[in-house]
Amino acid sequence: MIVVTRRGVSDAEIDRIRERIEQLGLRTHISRGEHRTIIGCIGDEARLAEASLLSLPGVESVTPVMKPYKLAAREFVAEPSRVRVGNAVIGGPALAVIAGPCSVEGRDMLRTTAQSVKQSGAALLRGGAYKPRSSPYAFQGLGVAGLEMLAQVRAETGLPIVTEVMDTRQVEEVSGFADMLQIGARNMQNFALLSEVGSVQRPVLLKRGLSATIKELLMAAEYIMARGNRDVVLCERGIRTYETATRNTMDVAAIPVLKRETHLPVIVDPSHAGGRADLVAPLSFAAIAAGADGLIVEVHPCPAEALSDGDQSLTLEGFGRLMEQLQPFATAVARPLGGAATSPTGTAAA
Amino acid sequence: MIVVTRRGVSDAEIDRIRERIEQLGLRTHISRGEHRTIIGCIGDEARLAEASLLSLPGVESVTPVMKPYKLAAREFVAEPSRVRVGNAVIGGPALAVIAGPCSVEGRDMLRTTAQSVKQSGAALLRGGAYKPRSSPYAFQGLGVAGLEMLAQVRAETGLPIVTEVMDTRQVEEVSGFADMLQIGARNMQNFALLSEVGSVQRPVLLKRGLSATIKELLMAAEYIMARGNRDVVLCERGIRTYETATRNTMDVAAIPVLKRETHLPVIVDPSHAGGRADLVAPLSFAAIAAGADGLIVEVHPCPAEALSDGDQSLTLEGFGRLMEQLQPFATAVARPLGGAATSPTGTAAA
Amino acid sequence: MIVVTRRGVSDAEIDRIRERIEQLGLRTHISRGEHRTIIGCIGDEARLAEASLLSLPGVESVTPVMKPYKLAAREFVAEPSRVRVGNAVIGGPALAVIAGPCSVEGRDMLRTTAQSVKQSGAALLRGGAYKPRSSPYAFQGLGVAGLEMLAQVRAETGLPIVTEVMDTRQVEEVSGFADMLQIGARNMQNFALLSEVGSVQRPVLLKRGLSATIKELLMAAEYIMARGNRDVVLCERGIRTYETATRNTMDVAAIPVLKRETHLPVIVDPSHAGGRADLVAPLSFAAIAAGADGLIVEVHPCPAEALSDGDQSLTLEGFGRLMEQLQPFATAVARPLGGAATSPTGTAAA
Amino acid sequence: MIVVTRRGVSDAEIDRIRERIEQLGLRTHISRGEHRTIIGCIGDEARLAEASLLSLPGVESVTPVMKPYKLAAREFVAEPSRVRVGNAVIGGPALAVIAGPCSVEGRDMLRTTAQSVKQSGAALLRGGAYKPRSSPYAFQGLGVAGLEMLAQVRAETGLPIVTEVMDTRQVEEVSGFADMLQIGARNMQNFALLSEVGSVQRPVLLKRGLSATIKELLMAAEYIMARGNRDVVLCERGIRTYETATRNTMDVAAIPVLKRETHLPVIVDPSHAGGRADLVAPLSFAAIAAGADGLIVEVHPCPAEALSDGDQSLTLEGFGRLMEQLQPFATAVARPLGGAATSPTGTAAA
Repeated sequence: MIVVTRRGVSDAEIDRIRERIEQLGLRTHISRGEHRTIIGCIGDEARLAEASLLSLPGVESVTPVMKPYKLAAREFVAEPSRVRVGNAVIGGPALAVIAGPCSVEGRDMLRTTAQSVKQSGAALLRGGAYKPRSSPYAFQGLGVAGLEMLAQVRAETGLPIVTEVMDTRQVEEVSGFADMLQIGARNMQNFALLSEVGSVQRPVLLKRGLSATIKELLMAAEYIMARGNRDVVLCERGIRTYETATRNTMDVAAIPVLKRETHLPVIVDPSHAGGRADLVAPLSFAAIAAGADGLIVEVHPCPAEALSDGDQSLTLEGFGRLMEQLQPFATAVARPLGGAATSPTGTAAA
Repeated sequence: MIVVTRRGVSDAEIDRIRERIEQLGLRTHISRGEHRTIIGCIGDEARLAEASLLSLPGVESVTPVMKPYKLAAREFVAEPSRVRVGNAVIGGPALAVIAGPCSVEGRDMLRTTAQSVKQSGAALLRGGAYKPRSSPYAFQGLGVAGLEMLAQVRAETGLPIVTEVMDTRQVEEVSGFADMLQIGARNMQNFALLSEVGSVQRPVLLKRGLSATIKELLMAAEYIMARGNRDVVLCERGIRTYETATRNTMDVAAIPVLKRETHLPVIVDPSHAGGRADLVAPLSFAAIAAGADGLIVEVHPCPAEALSDGDQSLTLEGFGRLMEQLQPFATAVARPLGGAATSPTGTAAA
Repeated sequence: MIVVTRRGVSDAEIDRIRERIEQLGLRTHISRGEHRTIIGCIGDEARLAEASLLSLPGVESVTPVMKPYKLAAREFVAEPSRVRVGNAVIGGPALAVIAGPCSVEGRDMLRTTAQSVKQSGAALLRGGAYKPRSSPYAFQGLGVAGLEMLAQVRAETGLPIVTEVMDTRQVEEVSGFADMLQIGARNMQNFALLSEVGSVQRPVLLKRGLSATIKELLMAAEYIMARGNRDVVLCERGIRTYETATRNTMDVAAIPVLKRETHLPVIVDPSHAGGRADLVAPLSFAAIAAGADGLIVEVHPCPAEALSDGDQSLTLEGFGRLMEQLQPFATAVARPLGGAATSPTGTAAA
Repeated sequence: MIVVTRRGVSDAEIDRIRERIEQLGLRTHISRGEHRTIIGCIGDEARLAEASLLSLPGVESVTPVMKPYKLAAREFVAEPSRVRVGNAVIGGPALAVIAGPCSVEGRDMLRTTAQSVKQSGAALLRGGAYKPRSSPYAFQGLGVAGLEMLAQVRAETGLPIVTEVMDTRQVEEVSGFADMLQIGARNMQNFALLSEVGSVQRPVLLKRGLSATIKELLMAAEYIMARGNRDVVLCERGIRTYETATRNTMDVAAIPVLKRETHLPVIVDPSHAGGRADLVAPLSFAAIAAGADGLIVEVHPCPAEALSDGDQSLTLEGFGRLMEQLQPFATAVARPLGGAATSPTGTAAA
């Protein structure tokens, strides 16, 4: 932590600032400039995060030096982490593609979709049973019936399933069906939920909040990891900006920045980032080129009749084409496209 | 809903779009231009919100016409709503001021603060027992012990209490102590939590999300109201922008826009909006001038030692000064400053 | 400037960083922490701004300590500056209101507007002769004919005139007519233009750029002042954010922040900030309450027929009402509403 | 243009709205809903853009249907445009890479850089002679001396040169030296400058403004094209968002959106987008993968001693490595990497 004083700070004020810092167990290092004084704080910065140094007379600014996350930090883990989800791996040599409908709308559409995306090369199946919808009047998902359909389709296809959990009270139930728990963008700072999924043994797909900084995303991962669950995959899904030409603004630079800052795998959701089916392919290419470990893509047998997010869903054929078009980019980054299911049994079914 | 077609759309495509809309029970009205065709959709637009018209061939854009919120909408309720919280009223003729510490840190600091802010003219007491913190390593609040302290201090001072609820599993417990449940900015789109507080009989203070639009804030209120709880107070607390000179950017225009769009009371949190104690006064003046129904202000006996948000907390004296300085602005908007507690018993204590 | 090194930096790297800083004429002060080292740089920071310290091996972050503006900084000028424009003063005890049409569309509409806003209490007349329009096909202003109309109406009413200059080649010409030169939001970082208006003897109204930080606004003022022209008035006019309910987001906190950082007067443009006539009044009240020194308001005899910005223009009666409604807020901040013209001659006409 | 009325609009109000629209030469088409009425406007929408329909009683919203740009629009030009710059082509089959120092700092560093980037495969040389700097005290470029150095190095290497023009008064002079005129991000809505470069016969590299929408970028291109100069290349260089981990947020989706909306070539500036040398490579890969026609990259023989933008500049070796690493991505998009200079003479030298 670096404390900079106001112009014209008094010696007594500097003393009081120094005392407060030392009282918290840190050492101080004082550099007096012509107009301002810089006070470097050496030791466990976490103790200072709680202290309101800015409210002390004479303080102009306070700048943290240490990163506030530890378990998620690259500097504390030598190797990139691999997260195993059923028989798939995210963060390994292969690029992992998760595909499926926004919502589970029925058994048949789910089965059709799963079989098709599997054949096209998807390694995991996504599908929402509990849906966060901005209107209370919109379709909210099939709930437990949807979870059962997901489990059955996993048994049939061998694709591990990824599904969202929205409420601390659902975590146990959803963990009984799903191979991977998704935390949606709107819940990225739902700290109660983060703690809850941190205490079960299911990998977590953590989506970046609509206006979360990269640092906040890492802090959210830290919440989960601090409770014991180290299997976290981060997902860039577009951030909110002033631009309205796309649903969100995909922050492609977040991929290399995260790769530098953390050992956790990073995937991208091109469907939500762009919000239109015709943007899914170019955004997927960009994500892979920038170093992402995989993708999560919305696919629906008939997007025009989808109960949610149809505008951004690919058709089954569209997804097949995407996977073919991705191949040259997978080659360019020297990673196979797959991470795919190899046997017809997922984790939870085992 | 207005559908605009792409340049060069075919008649067959237009027919298919029209059929899809009529299939959903709406009437269509077609205006053919030189290059594009406009299809107006008349009837219950909610049914269209589900439909993914953008995925139909020939569609260029889809624009909603109706507002997606009903219970919260000004056009369905003639009079501004008043929300009674214990013996205080928000949205009535008087300006209501909620004050207190960010977190309840102990009985003495809470009592001292409550007595002081009451004397200065606050009508309600705030204080966090469960605290959403961006780091898992930061102070997370005293929990139920904090709730008990709040209830006791209410019994002593008569100030109704406002406290945050973060988890669906806490709603019943917190409702047993608090006069008003606060939904924090990070939970504004925690739909499970919104539904849960919608089904208890406690007024709700709903804070705008960090990057929520005004429309999304109203939809979040609609979630609560749709479950039966009509006592919702909205709170502008600053939004996230590129500007770093302040912690958030207070969207002062949200106040008149909300007043036009909804009948619900609107208050402002100048402490979080600015993030520095020295900005609390000017932002409070601006909020009242722009038409806010009240304020929620962080006050701490010793901000430099606060366990959270000390940088933006006023001292007890500072809050007293603020209330004095607010007087001329209350006069300017012709509203008394108070809405204040009149007897030493709050709702839940009754 | 504070330089923080990466974890695991070598002594040789620290030496090289230190040498580079000292080579530029600054002293260094080194604090070694457990994992990182902090290097404080003492001396003329401006020399470091040029240096690319981040590109040196071992450097993780570089944080400036000094403010990059000097002439505009509050800390170098004891008293708030007053800017005299013709017979009006901005930044003095009185609140100054500038009013008039977006564009000068003709002599009659300008005269009618000027007489009316003067009677309602405006101190200065605004009107665009050169208009920045986002479409090359939109009305671009009357040019020199518009300037002549402004000068004539000044002669008739005594109101000093404020008009925009868009091109370095226009500065001399516009200065021959106008009492105050306006730099529009889109030109706030048109450095050639800033330098040019910095070298004439006409006060400048500098509007904040659509996405300019407060610091960048002050640096733009510094550009003008560094060339010799100290008569700069800053104008908050809303910034660009994700919110679409209003044309821009008025950053009301910018007013007290600017008041703390600079001695220059600060006014607000509620017409552009909100983009709708019905928001002008509440935003004006908020601006005055937060400490603004005045307002600039768009007024048109018949907004529905305005050639530009009609949606946000007040009618003549609407402006009269606004001035009446502002009175209680002027009283609340203990400043008279006026700064108004006292004689029928402006500067340039003298 | 689609006009939606307020709830409870009167017939007289609807009539007045319709009359106003028809008075401007358009036809109307009225759809009456239960609560609101939709008025479609058919004909030349540009005439309506001037009209302030929102200020008419009864109007709730006004939504444009037509695109406001014509010359830049994809729908009016069948084929993607190719822009010839000296002996290079941007927008042709090959990916064009522009490289060079932020500022021309001297003849030797420029020559060294030019020879090196040419050998590594760059097709054009960039270098600033006039530099927009946010501080008036920072290095402002060598001016005409810098232009002469650029011309000389072009003569020696055959690389066409790209350099920024900041002032309408410089356009003629700079056009005498440069093969391509760059309009910087801060001048994207400097309409006087856009008009001026629109009337010379030099290709223009138009950088997207810091917070410009894609539509505004296209309107800026339209300004240039409307004056007769059709040789415009668009450049995505990152936009301003709340995220501070990178200097700007590269809007990678802007590439496919622009490709859909316009026939003009689109290149990307990964140096400014990320603001750090280590982000240049991944952002370049993403840009090419998403469909960009080329890149503009900052390169400096010794970044740590650069007079501007050293933090984001590649070394000569770093640029060589980048070009090698780009090869697989060029292969993936099936475009050769080059567009390169084939003879030692540029346009202006001819």
